[in-house]
Amino acid sequence: MSSSSSSELILELSSKSFDGYQYIYSHDSLTVDCKMKFGIYVPLVADKECVPLLIFLSGLMCTEQDFIIKSGIQRLASKYGFIVANPDTSPRSCNIEGDDDQSNFGEGAGYYIDAIESKWSKNYQMFSYVNDEFYELLIKNFNVDINRIGIFGHNMGGHGALISFFKCPAQYKSVSAFAPIYNVLKCEWSRNAFIKFFGQDEELWKEYDACELVASYDGPMPYAPILIDQGSNDQYKDNYLFPDKFIEACTNASFPIQLREQIGYEHDYFFIMTFLEDHFKYHKNEFEH
Amino acid sequence: MSSSSSSELILELSSKSFDGYQYIYSHDSLTVDCKMKFGIYVPLVADKECVPLLIFLSGLMCTEQDFIIKSGIQRLASKYGFIVANPDTSPRSCNIEGDDDQSNFGEGAGYYIDAIESKWSKNYQMFSYVNDEFYELLIKNFNVDINRIGIFGHNMGGHGALISFFKCPAQYKSVSAFAPIYNVLKCEWSRNAFIKFFGQDEELWKEYDACELVASYDGPMPYAPILIDQGSNDQYKDNYLFPDKFIEACTNASFPIQLREQIGYEHDYFFIMTFLEDHFKYHKNEFEH
Repeated sequence: MSSSSSSELILELSSKSFDGYQYIYSHDSLTVDCKMKFGIYVPLVADKECVPLLIFLSGLMCTEQDFIIKSGIQRLASKYGFIVANPDTSPRSCNIEGDDDQSNFGEGAGYYIDAIESKWSKNYQMFSYVNDEFYELLIKNFNVDINRIGIFGHNMGGHGALISFFKCPAQYKSVSAFAPIYNVLKCEWSRNAFIKFFGQDEELWKEYDACELVASYDGPMPYAPILIDQGSNDQYKDNYLFPDKFIEACTNASFPIQLREQIGYEHDYFFIMTFLEDHFKYHKNEFEH
Repeated sequence: MSSSSSSELILELSSKSFDGYQYIYSHDSLTVDCKMKFGIYVPLVADKECVPLLIFLSGLMCTEQDFIIKSGIQRLASKYGFIVANPDTSPRSCNIEGDDDQSNFGEGAGYYIDAIESKWSKNYQMFSYVNDEFYELLIKNFNVDINRIGIFGHNMGGHGALISFFKCPAQYKSVSAFAPIYNVLKCEWSRNAFIKFFGQDEELWKEYDACELVASYDGPMPYAPILIDQGSNDQYKDNYLFPDKFIEACTNASFPIQLREQIGYEHDYFFIMTFLEDHFKYHKNEFEH
C-alpha cells in the first residue's frame, strides 16, 4: 500500500513547449514523509524510444518552479532529446519549529543530505530522496535509458550533484555544475545547517562534502574532465562557495575537472542560461563514451 | 528640470547573459506620474554600432520582470544583435482607490491606453508612456537604429503592440504578437477596465481596439503579413481573445496577417519561448525590406 502510493504521481501542470511537454507532478514521498513536487520536461521523442535523463538540483530558496521558469531548459531538452527532471530542494509543510525562519536552512535549503538529529531526521532525507526514491520513480514512470543518466545543479544543487555522483557512481554516468557550494564544511550557510542536521561532530559532515568525497572516490573516471562553470562576478564565490578548495582537492586526488571562470557573469539564472547548452553537450559526450 | 529628470535612469539590475547585459532601470515618468521600471537587454555589439530595437509589451498581471525571466529573450537578443526593451504594464503605487482590487484592472492591467475619466487620467496614460516617453527615452539613452524599431507583445501586450503599430506607423517598422487580446471591445477583461477608464461611450473605446484600427489604417504596409502566434489550447482564446474577429477585420480591410494556430500550446511563456525566435526572424526580415 505505502509502496505503491509512493510512486503515484499527481499531474499539477502540463504545458507544451518546443517539441515536448513541461510537466509538474506531485507525489507522497515516503523518504521525506511529505508531499513533494518536481518538474519534468519530456521530449516527444521519448514517446517512441528510451532517452537520456538529466536530473537538475536547484539552489538555496528554490522550489521546483525556478529552474523550469528561468533557465530555458525546454529548448535544449527538446533539441537534445533528453528528459530533464528537477526535484524540490527540501521537504515542505512539515511544521517543524524553525524550518522556515532562515533562507539558508530548512524549507528551500535541504542541502541534499540525510539528517541524523532526531528533530530533522524524519523529513530531511534529501540525499536518499533524490538518489533512491526520486531516481527510481523517474525510471519507473518515464522512458529513461538507465545507461545515460546524468546529474547537475546550481549553488546548493551543484553541491548536491557532485556528492550524488561521488557517492553513487553506479547511478550516474556524468555530472556537471554551475557555481556549486564546493566545500560545505567551510561555507557559513551549510555550517549553520549541518550543526542542526548532524550535531557538532564534523566528521559526520564530511560524508556530504565534495572536497572530502573526491579524495576517496574510487568509481569510474569521467571520459572528459567534469564541467563546472563559475561566474567571475559571482558575489558568493570567495566567501561561500570556495572554488579554490575544490580545485585543490581534485588536484590532490588526481581527479579531472574543467572549472571554467566565466568573466563578468554573476550567480543567477542569466549566467546559467548562457552556459546551459555547453552542459548538455558535456553530458551527451559522456553518454557516448 | 522636470524634462531632464524624466529621462534620468536609475540602474536597478545589471547581469551579464550571453553576449550582452540584461538591465533593469527605473525612472520618474512624467507621463504616468510615478516611478516606472523597465527591462532592457543590450547586446555587446551595441557598444560599437547602432542596432535594431524590439519593444515587448507584457500581458495582464505582469511587471517588467516576467518577460526577462521567463521568455529566454537574452539568447535571441544576443544572437540577433537586437536591443530588447520591455516596460512595466501599468503605473504603480499611485494609491488610487480600486487600483489593485482586480487582476484585470489597474496595477498590472493598464491596457496601453490613455484614460479619460479624471480618477484615472493622471496616471493611466500607458499609450503615451510607451509610444512617446519610453520610446524617446530608449532612443536617447541606447544605441538604437531608429529605422529598425519593432514592437510585439503577449495577451494585453499583444493588443498594445497592435494598436501602437496601427496608431503610430511612422514609429514602428514591424509588429508581431503572441495570443493578443484581438478585440478589446468584446473582451470582458478590457470592457471592465474601459468603462472605468473612458466611461460608457464605447465610441471612445474604439480608439484602442485593433479590429477597429486596422479598418482605418493608412500607414505603410508590412513587407510580409504580420506574424501572430496563437496556441490552440489557449484557455482564453474563444471567450476573451477572439482571433476570429481580428481575422475578419483584417480580411475586410485587406490587411495582411499570418495568424498561426500552434497546435497543443497554451497561453503561457512555455508557448511564447517556443516561437520567440520566429518573431525575431520576422522582425529582422521586415527591417531588411
